[in-house]
Amino acid sequence: MAKVADKYLKVDPWAIIEEGFDPERNRTSESIFSLGNEYMGVRGYADEGYSGDSLPGSYFNGLNEQQEIGNHYKGIIRFLRYMVNAVDWLHTRITVDGEVLDLAKSKVSEFSRRLDFQSGTYCREFIWHLECGKDLKVTFTRLVSMTLSHLGLQQVAFQPLNFSGTAEVCTGLDFNMIHEERGKSMWKSLRSGVEDGVTAIMAETLTTGNKLFSSFVLHSSQVINAVRVERDRFIGQQFTLELTQGKAEHYTKLAVNCTDSDSSRSEDSLWAEGMELAVAAGRLDEQAVFSEQKTYWSGIWQTSDIRIEGDPENQQGIRFCIFQLYQTYHGDHPGFNIGAKGLTGEAYRGLAFWDTESYCLPFYMFNNPKAAKSLLEFRYKTLPEAMLRAKDVDCEGACYPIATIDGTESCDLWQHSNLQLHVGTAVSYGIWHYVKNTGDRAFLYSKGAEMLIQISRFYATRGQWGQRSGEYGYFGVMGPDEFQLMVNNNCYINLMAQKLFEYTLATVAEMEEQVPDTFAGVMAKTGLRDEELADWSLKAQHMRIPLDPNSGIYEEHDGFFDMPHIDIHSIPVTDFPLYANWSYDRLYRYDMIKQPDVLMFMFLYSGQFSREAKVANYEYYEPRCIHESSLSPSIHSILASEIGKHEEAYTFFEFATRLDLDNYNRNTREGLHTTSIAAAWMNIVYGFGGMRSDGDCLSFQPSLPQRWTSYSFQVMYEGVLLRIEVMKDAVSFKAVDGGSTEIVVYGQQLKVDAAGTAIPLGEGVLAG
Amino acid sequence: MAKVADKYLKVDPWAIIEEGFDPERNRTSESIFSLGNEYMGVRGYADEGYSGDSLPGSYFNGLNEQQEIGNHYKGIIRFLRYMVNAVDWLHTRITVDGEVLDLAKSKVSEFSRRLDFQSGTYCREFIWHLECGKDLKVTFTRLVSMTLSHLGLQQVAFQPLNFSGTAEVCTGLDFNMIHEERGKSMWKSLRSGVEDGVTAIMAETLTTGNKLFSSFVLHSSQVINAVRVERDRFIGQQFTLELTQGKAEHYTKLAVNCTDSDSSRSEDSLWAEGMELAVAAGRLDEQAVFSEQKTYWSGIWQTSDIRIEGDPENQQGIRFCIFQLYQTYHGDHPGFNIGAKGLTGEAYRGLAFWDTESYCLPFYMFNNPKAAKSLLEFRYKTLPEAMLRAKDVDCEGACYPIATIDGTESCDLWQHSNLQLHVGTAVSYGIWHYVKNTGDRAFLYSKGAEMLIQISRFYATRGQWGQRSGEYGYFGVMGPDEFQLMVNNNCYINLMAQKLFEYTLATVAEMEEQVPDTFAGVMAKTGLRDEELADWSLKAQHMRIPLDPNSGIYEEHDGFFDMPHIDIHSIPVTDFPLYANWSYDRLYRYDMIKQPDVLMFMFLYSGQFSREAKVANYEYYEPRCIHESSLSPSIHSILASEIGKHEEAYTFFEFATRLDLDNYNRNTREGLHTTSIAAAWMNIVYGFGGMRSDGDCLSFQPSLPQRWTSYSFQVMYEGVLLRIEVMKDAVSFKAVDGGSTEIVVYGQQLKVDAAGTAIPLGEGVLAG
Repeated sequence: MAKVADKYLKVDPWAIIEEGFDPERNRTSESIFSLGNEYMGVRGYADEGYSGDSLPGSYFNGLNEQQEIGNHYKGIIRFLRYMVNAVDWLHTRITVDGEVLDLAKSKVSEFSRRLDFQSGTYCREFIWHLECGKDLKVTFTRLVSMTLSHLGLQQVAFQPLNFSGTAEVCTGLDFNMIHEERGKSMWKSLRSGVEDGVTAIMAETLTTGNKLFSSFVLHSSQVINAVRVERDRFIGQQFTLELTQGKAEHYTKLAVNCTDSDSSRSEDSLWAEGMELAVAAGRLDEQAVFSEQKTYWSGIWQTSDIRIEGDPENQQGIRFCIFQLYQTYHGDHPGFNIGAKGLTGEAYRGLAFWDTESYCLPFYMFNNPKAAKSLLEFRYKTLPEAMLRAKDVDCEGACYPIATIDGTESCDLWQHSNLQLHVGTAVSYGIWHYVKNTGDRAFLYSKGAEMLIQISRFYATRGQWGQRSGEYGYFGVMGPDEFQLMVNNNCYINLMAQKLFEYTLATVAEMEEQVPDTFAGVMAKTGLRDEELADWSLKAQHMRIPLDPNSGIYEEHDGFFDMPHIDIHSIPVTDFPLYANWSYDRLYRYDMIKQPDVLMFMFLYSGQFSREAKVANYEYYEPRCIHESSLSPSIHSILASEIGKHEEAYTFFEFATRLDLDNYNRNTREGLHTTSIAAAWMNIVYGFGGMRSDGDCLSFQPSLPQRWTSYSFQVMYEGVLLRIEVMKDAVSFKAVDGGSTEIVVYGQQLKVDAAGTAIPLGEGVLAG
Repeated sequence: MAKVADKYLKVDPWAIIEEGFDPERNRTSESIFSLGNEYMGVRGYADEGYSGDSLPGSYFNGLNEQQEIGNHYKGIIRFLRYMVNAVDWLHTRITVDGEVLDLAKSKVSEFSRRLDFQSGTYCREFIWHLECGKDLKVTFTRLVSMTLSHLGLQQVAFQPLNFSGTAEVCTGLDFNMIHEERGKSMWKSLRSGVEDGVTAIMAETLTTGNKLFSSFVLHSSQVINAVRVERDRFIGQQFTLELTQGKAEHYTKLAVNCTDSDSSRSEDSLWAEGMELAVAAGRLDEQAVFSEQKTYWSGIWQTSDIRIEGDPENQQGIRFCIFQLYQTYHGDHPGFNIGAKGLTGEAYRGLAFWDTESYCLPFYMFNNPKAAKSLLEFRYKTLPEAMLRAKDVDCEGACYPIATIDGTESCDLWQHSNLQLHVGTAVSYGIWHYVKNTGDRAFLYSKGAEMLIQISRFYATRGQWGQRSGEYGYFGVMGPDEFQLMVNNNCYINLMAQKLFEYTLATVAEMEEQVPDTFAGVMAKTGLRDEELADWSLKAQHMRIPLDPNSGIYEEHDGFFDMPHIDIHSIPVTDFPLYANWSYDRLYRYDMIKQPDVLMFMFLYSGQFSREAKVANYEYYEPRCIHESSLSPSIHSILASEIGKHEEAYTFFEFATRLDLDNYNRNTREGLHTTSIAAAWMNIVYGFGGMRSDGDCLSFQPSLPQRWTSYSFQVMYEGVLLRIEVMKDAVSFKAVDGGSTEIVVYGQQLKVDAAGTAIPLGEGVLAG
């Protein structure tokens, strides 16, 4: 937990601002200044090319490549899929008097860049001091449209400060982007050309044949006479801009990218669709595009803003988190999920984990329920892959993959893909949590039930009966705590499986009574048998939940209490990260845990555990946790708040909103910690706000960090947009939109309507 | 255990004979008809080339290649070394009237081959019916000299049956041998030429730069006029033989191969050494070479033969085992070890395992103590590599590799290389066992003690104290039973570590008293500290040995008794081998065991466990064991004999001697099960002979399989060659050579001298 901030960026409530160019931090800034609209994402790399250290990355949801794994054992994956680096649609090369602009070589001053949360744009500008003595101000502005998924806009402006002359510009579409892990471009060109003023190219991935159409139309402040440039996997236009001292000239590139990720479309049809979109985009007024983007974001901030008074750094941090979450995902495209790094880098290969349901789903559920539903729809869409995976591992039903981009298991470490079972229960928990808080029974009955049945089948065939205990449980597993590699009866897995069985049985019973016809359809489709229901009931009833009755401490797994003790504070700082500095096997031989496991289920099913139980388990497990997962501190912070350890709660929160902005883990260069960003939101809402969403209605137990004057957040609950403001002396609740609702505050029922209610801040709940 | 023999070869007491050529069985026969002399080995492939399914293999101890492994974690190996396929020094191509001899295409009759245990030769002959109507008898005889390590001899004879004419022959040295796993030759040629009548070529391995000089001189029954043939990685001689109807003509190729495995020698010096050996070999009389080979083997059979009356199949089988063991290893070259497949195939990459000390050492100890010592010297020679490995895994002292060819860890599965700790204790047991039975304290004091200290250091730093039990043990380990992948306090490992500490402490104490000067040297060299001795003593004393006091059953590891039960007989035969048909993780979730674990230590330290304890543990563990390791049945057979389960003992023995001859595992094509061959010897001597060598003197408890009339075996013990003959009514003991000794038979002390002693066969000990 010895995390140290690398403070570098300027603090601003509504923007990320970097002043001055630091080549050492270039990759980190490329991650932070990423833009995305869930359909596509692009790192904040230099449009004009950069010969120094850089990770130019342009990613599209659904465009994946495949790698074959040499493996001889059954049940271990043979192929892994990964997100592929795609077209550089921002490709720009600028030459003045024979000198090429390249920040690694050119002399520049007054460099600044800005990511603006209100306009949804990224703008970068500087003065280029040419060797010949000319000074040219160059400004790059870009956006990725939140309303027109295919559209990217780039504006490049030039203002000569001490000369008049010309600039040579080549702007293009480049499929030669290197996928860094593979060390080459993963594309082959299919077609390129210029039609109806649209410059376009289409390519496909080498092994999976995913196709991508990319195109642009140019607008300019002056008439330009462009010449087509073509080479392997590249098409562009070259032209000369006339520049007059003091006067700004610019051109705008309206780029349209169009994917065919399932490789089912013909080249002709994708080309035709792309061309149609490109021609339409070419007719757009660029100011209208900027304005529509601003309107979109204004709507977002109206429903989803978190305001923190008295702490400008966290104010900036949490808005950055919310901004990036919406950029990564907002549920407009069914079939997408949230990669651990979103669309901001190659690390984790674009794969989605249980983070989606455990950490991201609540943010969407309470801000954008449609997006939350879309996330669950991803699991429904990939149910067939999960059923194949269950067969691969000699089980029945559906085994959801530990890491996936398209529903197939893409984790190439068998110890994770074959032993970690917590994705299936994350999905069933997600369904339960979503239905509970949105009341969307239509989803439960149509798709949820089918998933629950298939997930239950998996857990009923993967588990076994202990020979001595006579109890049911899971052998040879790794829980969420990845520092206990292969254990029996992980308490989290067992408890979550018990909850899964119970919820599936309850859903079946409810459907039989409420929607018998729909239920008959699910029965028919899944082939559900009565014996299975009896079996699940028996297994839920006899599920082993290791617990020391004297101390009330749950044993993380059978034998955990005998694991050799290590004082985690005795580990030298230089040993971190342990994965890099400790022998692999050594990580797994202590009572040291990597992230919450017992504490995780105590949070997920908060209402079922007494305060005393939480205190006992927190006090046992927290000192053993090294938080090597970036998801860990927030959960601890939330529990610490609940049990009144407010100082500790704030300590755990300290880097939640600024994990990437201050590069705490020193790996932001690889991409943003997108799912941790969601945990930062939870940390405020569930932590300081003390919200709980696992009970019969929403409850709150707000506290206020001492450093803050006040804070407010909003949640969408049963169609009502609730605004909660926590001040030094009071907490106010107001239904901003949608009528009224009942909530529980500090254990007391409260009706909230448009008029609002204020109550005193709970005693002793001033945090950190 | 549902193993079925593939009976095919002719039964003969002193030879392996195949009559008729079966292309389907060709690879299997290539393994069985392998020749070797520990310096080199060559599969029984067709000298003349074969275009059908074949694995031409020529291997040299110490010639290895290296493969880089993509791995990101510390402590997991980055390179693996493997035995490389080397020169085809038997390369022969024969053309008559333009037709090329190739058993995959040519018409032949009266095909037979014979591997002769008395002459140490492999002979193959057939009549070749040419398309033109000519019939030519062709005979290939080869040997690999047991007395001149560098020498291989090939004799090719031709007898035209119905014509006179000529045969074109090209004989050469070919480095284009394909390493099957890599799919290419791993050699590049350095030099080739003809000097002093010697045709020679020298090449080196691609990445490790191991050099091999290969050469030949030809003798012939007629004057031949040869022409040099050279091409990439090949040199040969082409000539015409004049053939007269009915008359046999032959030529002999005296091949000399000379290795420089540590890549330290200059090309010139290796070439000069090889040339000198080749010139000398060229002067040898071929009949003298055959005769010397026969004399050598005659000596071997005099000391090491096992005679079985009334069971020709096992008679042939056990002699095949002994023959192959001597071919694989006889201790003439320090620094060699015994690969799992010897020098007979690529499978297991030529790597040696704990099999060496646990299964092979006893054979050598009681037949050829010098060879046994050489095996231990391999571990001493590779102590530096074991010490580096210990550092790699964050421990001190020496961590002997789970799989190695040169002392470095070469197992690329971390779950084995990082979790299996039983090689170090196999080495310490080997030292203890060897010293106990040979009295070679000089070895113990000079090298053994140093190894013991470094191994103890490893076990004292890899182990940990259980937090709840307060006992010392090993967490995150895999015992010999590879079906329990990652467990805590594996009983075998803990017990063996306890014995290791005790033996090291006893050795230290003995040396301090007996050889203080030598001991001072060891102290200085190892930097041994008194605190370490105290630490080892404490850890030995508090070692956790999981045992159920009520039943007397040792728990294989903490929690084993709760592992879900599976009736192994309920597993469909089609599921075997389980590694191929079960999901990888599923293998590890039952009380099913792969091979003896608790029973293994009860055998190794037989004298420390009561008959009752052995019965209880055998009856618990045997029904749970699927014997997926080929080493497993023999240990069970030995224990079954001891506890009077004679039928069962025989059942387990049934395929021991003929595992490869009858291809029980259907994978003999990949190479012989060389270390299982050693277990077959143990099965007779320790099983039916009831010998135990872990006590104060040798003891015997002989039984006689019902199917056998009698059997005899010999063991070298304290310089005395003891002959034990077990007959239906009596057991006789005789000191064939070297004086007299004391032994224990059926619990009674007995002095054995040259006159011999006979006692009645013990009651109720007629086996199977």
